[in-house]
Amino acid sequence: MIGIKDLPSAQDASELPIGVFDSGVGGLTVVSALRRRLPEESILYLGDTARLPYGDKSSRTVRRYTQRNVDFLMTRGVKAVVVACNTASALALDDLAYPIPIWGVIEPGAAAAVAATQGKIGVIATEATIRSDAYGRAIRRRAPEIEVLSQACPLFVPLVEEGWIDDSISRQIAERYLAPLLAANIDTLVLGCTHYPLLKSVLRQVVGETVQLVDSAATMAEKVAAELGVRCVAAPSGAAQHHFCVTDSGQHFARIASDLLTQSAVGRSQKIPEIVLELVEV
Amino acid sequence: MIGIKDLPSAQDASELPIGVFDSGVGGLTVVSALRRRLPEESILYLGDTARLPYGDKSSRTVRRYTQRNVDFLMTRGVKAVVVACNTASALALDDLAYPIPIWGVIEPGAAAAVAATQGKIGVIATEATIRSDAYGRAIRRRAPEIEVLSQACPLFVPLVEEGWIDDSISRQIAERYLAPLLAANIDTLVLGCTHYPLLKSVLRQVVGETVQLVDSAATMAEKVAAELGVRCVAAPSGAAQHHFCVTDSGQHFARIASDLLTQSAVGRSQKIPEIVLELVEV
Repeated sequence: MIGIKDLPSAQDASELPIGVFDSGVGGLTVVSALRRRLPEESILYLGDTARLPYGDKSSRTVRRYTQRNVDFLMTRGVKAVVVACNTASALALDDLAYPIPIWGVIEPGAAAAVAATQGKIGVIATEATIRSDAYGRAIRRRAPEIEVLSQACPLFVPLVEEGWIDDSISRQIAERYLAPLLAANIDTLVLGCTHYPLLKSVLRQVVGETVQLVDSAATMAEKVAAELGVRCVAAPSGAAQHHFCVTDSGQHFARIASDLLTQSAVGRSQKIPEIVLELVEV
Repeated sequence: MIGIKDLPSAQDASELPIGVFDSGVGGLTVVSALRRRLPEESILYLGDTARLPYGDKSSRTVRRYTQRNVDFLMTRGVKAVVVACNTASALALDDLAYPIPIWGVIEPGAAAAVAATQGKIGVIATEATIRSDAYGRAIRRRAPEIEVLSQACPLFVPLVEEGWIDDSISRQIAERYLAPLLAANIDTLVLGCTHYPLLKSVLRQVVGETVQLVDSAATMAEKVAAELGVRCVAAPSGAAQHHFCVTDSGQHFARIASDLLTQSAVGRSQKIPEIVLELVEV
């Protein structure tokens, strides 16, 4: 971790990129939202593909990985860090002490869910996120009267990685996982893992038209915009530059990254950046 | 890595455990086979659960992890290492240079398949193992006339981890993966990942009665028995002691370990050892 003396002034900091990390590609849903809301901002992305998934690992291990990832982004130079991984946000955010702001996706996701619900929210996420009850706590802190039901969906990430994103088998798996939440008549479903928005079409079929699907990406981007403004470190106008690092050279990243950025582009009109990957050791 | 000067004599070495490592619990199928064939031998097991799965990662990353795991086992003191992970055996075995023998599961698995087949072998494994063509090369080296068809099955490991081991959804996934192999009339199917024997019941339903299912565990145990004899380092008679280390304290290990050791015990009569886990950093 770098010391305070190494920190740039607000003016210099404004030109630094925003650091974003995730265990893999899922965090690119957040990158898409940031690009739409803050087109002037450069982004330095780190996908910890050598150690993914985080969602079935212990708090201790997820905390160790998260700290290493933030250290890496700090060393490269960023003005803030967005923890785009729900599992890392749920388990590791409280332990981080750095001289730049670090924002997780749980609070924005909880805020979006509270804004959308009539009173009964379902949360789907990885096992570690569900075990932490981070969404439940964040929602009840805002609105104690809201009922929250949770369901871990450990097969969703591998299904997305396998590319079975609009598929009869994926639908059956979603039906099995969501049955208890639907039986309890949830009106809002939080997609509590950055991979899950890729399964939106299947999830929509399973939950029907009346249940609201909520994820953190857009709310996260609003929060980042507001915070950069308050701190006077918003980027000056000019061409934003995005840089993508991964800890393993797996073949999946580039393919799914392209799917993700295409699927989440507004009206498919947003230009998809060519993804050039730098392999790093963290 | 320890130096030659630190190596024990053959007599001392005989009392050391056999080191076995896998990315997770799958290698316990090999432990079961070793316990049956070599009941006097103590085993030191390492499950690298903090970084599993290996099967969708690059050669470079799998090689780095494999070396760290062998270093750990060497530091603890073992007389030989069994690489129970097919992916590590396929990608990393050639690079390892240690003063004790290190055996992978690919060669024993290939030998078992060649012994079983009438001429057309299917291999199912992780993406990394399939991409390496390690089984294809090992089979053709023994019998160039044999036809080998390969299929990566990336969802099988997460299905086993989820505990859906005798399940309609698992069967549909197996049907989809195996369709090209069955259409090509394979007569033998190599379960080229140590997790897959847990799906044997589903796989048997999908391939029918005439296709032979082959895995490395029993052949591996025969090889270890022969090699220890040749090197005069077989254990003296006495109570074997088994020790299990994991790099992450996930909840899955103990549960699946119990399933695996139960399922693979001979006639269910073999005593299942109580699994006490030591959490280590590798």
